Amino acid sequence: MTNTPRAARFLALASSALAFCGAATASPQSAVELAQQGDDPAWAITEGLTTEIGPRQAATEAEAAARRWALARLAAMGFANVREEQFMMPTWVRGDEEASLTGPFQPQKLHIAALGNSASTGPKGIEGEIVYFASYDALLAAPDAMVKGKIVFIDHQMKAAQDGSGYGQYGRARFTGPNAAAKKGAIATVIRSIGTDNHRVPHTGGTNFEKGVKPIPAGALSNPDADQLVRQWRRVTATPVAGGASPGALRLKLLLTPQNLGQQHSGNIIAEVPGSDPAASPVIIACHLDSWDLATGAIDDAAGCGIITAAAKHVMTAGQPRRTIRLLWAGAEEVGVFGGKAYFEAHGKEKHAVAMESDFGADRVWRVDFKLPDSAKSLADRISAAVAPFGVTRGKYPASGGADVGALIEAGVPAVDLQQDGTRYFDLHHTADDTLDKVDPAQLRQNVVAWTAVLAILANSSDAELP
Amino acid sequence: MTNTPRAARFLALASSALAFCGAATASPQSAVELAQQGDDPAWAITEGLTTEIGPRQAATEAEAAARRWALARLAAMGFANVREEQFMMPTWVRGDEEASLTGPFQPQKLHIAALGNSASTGPKGIEGEIVYFASYDALLAAPDAMVKGKIVFIDHQMKAAQDGSGYGQYGRARFTGPNAAAKKGAIATVIRSIGTDNHRVPHTGGTNFEKGVKPIPAGALSNPDADQLVRQWRRVTATPVAGGASPGALRLKLLLTPQNLGQQHSGNIIAEVPGSDPAASPVIIACHLDSWDLATGAIDDAAGCGIITAAAKHVMTAGQPRRTIRLLWAGAEEVGVFGGKAYFEAHGKEKHAVAMESDFGADRVWRVDFKLPDSAKSLADRISAAVAPFGVTRGKYPASGGADVGALIEAGVPAVDLQQDGTRYFDLHHTADDTLDKVDPAQLRQNVVAWTAVLAILANSSDAELP
Repeated sequence: MTNTPRAARFLALASSALAFCGAATASPQSAVELAQQGDDPAWAITEGLTTEIGPRQAATEAEAAARRWALARLAAMGFANVREEQFMMPTWVRGDEEASLTGPFQPQKLHIAALGNSASTGPKGIEGEIVYFASYDALLAAPDAMVKGKIVFIDHQMKAAQDGSGYGQYGRARFTGPNAAAKKGAIATVIRSIGTDNHRVPHTGGTNFEKGVKPIPAGALSNPDADQLVRQWRRVTATPVAGGASPGALRLKLLLTPQNLGQQHSGNIIAEVPGSDPAASPVIIACHLDSWDLATGAIDDAAGCGIITAAAKHVMTAGQPRRTIRLLWAGAEEVGVFGGKAYFEAHGKEKHAVAMESDFGADRVWRVDFKLPDSAKSLADRISAAVAPFGVTRGKYPASGGADVGALIEAGVPAVDLQQDGTRYFDLHHTADDTLDKVDPAQLRQNVVAWTAVLAILANSSDAELP
Repeated sequence: MTNTPRAARFLALASSALAFCGAATASPQSAVELAQQGDDPAWAITEGLTTEIGPRQAATEAEAAARRWALARLAAMGFANVREEQFMMPTWVRGDEEASLTGPFQPQKLHIAALGNSASTGPKGIEGEIVYFASYDALLAAPDAMVKGKIVFIDHQMKAAQDGSGYGQYGRARFTGPNAAAKKGAIATVIRSIGTDNHRVPHTGGTNFEKGVKPIPAGALSNPDADQLVRQWRRVTATPVAGGASPGALRLKLLLTPQNLGQQHSGNIIAEVPGSDPAASPVIIACHLDSWDLATGAIDDAAGCGIITAAAKHVMTAGQPRRTIRLLWAGAEEVGVFGGKAYFEAHGKEKHAVAMESDFGADRVWRVDFKLPDSAKSLADRISAAVAPFGVTRGKYPASGGADVGALIEAGVPAVDLQQDGTRYFDLHHTADDTLDKVDPAQLRQNVVAWTAVLAILANSSDAELP
């Protein structure tokens, strides 16, 4: 009921926006009407996948169950060529995880999550002295002697940002912090979660060790737990926190017992809306089916699969597009983009007109970015005009695509990005809190409307515009 | 720096408010000035206790460490008669805790916390069929046959409220829901956390079994986990959720291994500001030193101890009050108000002029309530006028006091309540999220200012006003 006035306004705006579009106006308009007013397959997919399957870690039975679920759901929705393409991948799984500050103050438990590829402490755990670094760069600058035999803690000051900027810079503490610490002789690494919330839910995620570097145990503390460690560190050192100096003896006990299971099966799910022109190259749209194991992966990335699939469904229902639309529900994105790489190995030599991906949550689309050939100038203008009524601004910088279509884009496939509002994203990303209640149905629908408008235009674009 | 304009405004308002107060204007005013402009012992206590001690479960070594910390801190602050009064109490401690939805869908882990006094499932856990109840009242109304041999789930619809109303009504699911289920033959009870947040942090708290009822395992799921259970329940029953009917077979596996440790030591900490008139009855102000074990108990109730102690310190510094101010940092509130009862047993027959307690978080005081003798009408008016400049409204209903002074008030001791804004309180209450970062220093200081104003007036009230 509450959506009715908004839907009506969307429709009126969309009609006026589309009135001056040069090409394929009938189909986009009717697809967008369906997206605005019909049922909401995006919600149904997000709710269904997170409820009936839940966490879907790559190459586990849960991910296999999710693939079976996806095959059945996509076939039931009327997509063509629904299939699974399996691949093998190295598989790491979480074990027990406990951490405690053990001195010099009253012992206290901390909330920790092992990072993907962390080594095990063994079942008895380890205990050691903490050495504090205010940043990843401070760790890099430290002499080995400061680190050797100790547990490295890496702090940072990441803040929420609409475009998610900060993840790349601050994320280095997770991506390669443990590797840097291991090379200097640390016995373990604990980082402040790469996250912007203040809940006791640590943010997991993959870390990577160079060839030749022996992995060490590596975990992330929740922000409140990292705060506590820092307060104790400040008392122990009795000076303002500065990078690295460790005159005191703040001690941490750590138990992490993850396992490497060797090569296991994962797979991509592919489905299509066949285009009317078999000679035209397809539009590929992607999301990822796997999630981290700590939650049901509602925003990362069940919602993405819901959004792209709903848009394709609306375009299909409104009338057959000229180009084939290929949906890629990639497997094993979180743990190293194994699905995206497998897709590229299998299909990288085929022609693709353009690639898109939805993998930044479920909040509203606020900007559209392009990386298109010169021939597509008018196409970009039409897309910008089509999404403007939904509050989407044209960006100034090139589209970069998502992880699962990254190899394609690097190989030259054009890209369009519908950038989602990431202000809340790193409150939830890779935590136990990534659950369905965090998805706002109104914003999810706005994603679908914007995606439908763009997809309808792309799928009906001419061969002169896109290769 | 940012507090300076606010402090100046407070001071100006306080001065004008106090200009028309009939009694003891000099002392209250200077105490309030100290509270507004001096250092902030409330923050120092809250930060120190939560950082250096952390969780402080009643009758454990952590609570004993907290008592030692409290004795040292209160003595260092210049209070008199700082002492510990020990008592014995039955002691329950948490063990391992795991829960999973095991069918008919893909198995999924849930976040659960055992409720205080829960029985153990044994180290192998139990598995059973869930029967859903929309409320505690629905459980009470159900026939035994619907419950026997099953795991009862109790849902509810608690929403945040400024005055915390809802806790009493919805809280029955926790207080006595497991007892009601046990009497009907349930093998375990799982409730939706009595909380208003949407994070994966379950809310613990005590539950009680009647004499003669054998305790069963009892735990609380976080709200997102309860949502998940309810969505699966709806699918299994394939009808709108209605109280109790269980045609399906939604299964839960539960592992809770708490232990009863028998009688253990706890204790109250008492400190005083000696009054100038030894014949005058004291003002008693209370908080509780213990916390639940899942977090550092910043809002419940380190902040309360910070607030009452800071107010007493400011009154003491401003000049000796006529009445003695007695601070009670009670032990063992969370698990059954054992400290409050022990205080009453030891001191209930002494005269007390009036009782106050701070135990509802650290957000601003918004209302003052009174339960005073007729002789204190002018006193109540003076207090209302003194706190009005700080945004505190006079309430219409009688003060009820806090748990630790409850026995005193029931025995006829007058009470003044400075009601705190509880809108956020049940987002955090009894969860792992009750950590220092949730305390807003500006609102904490407003508490201290309001408390200081009230305490200065009460401690200088006449024998004609208070007994």
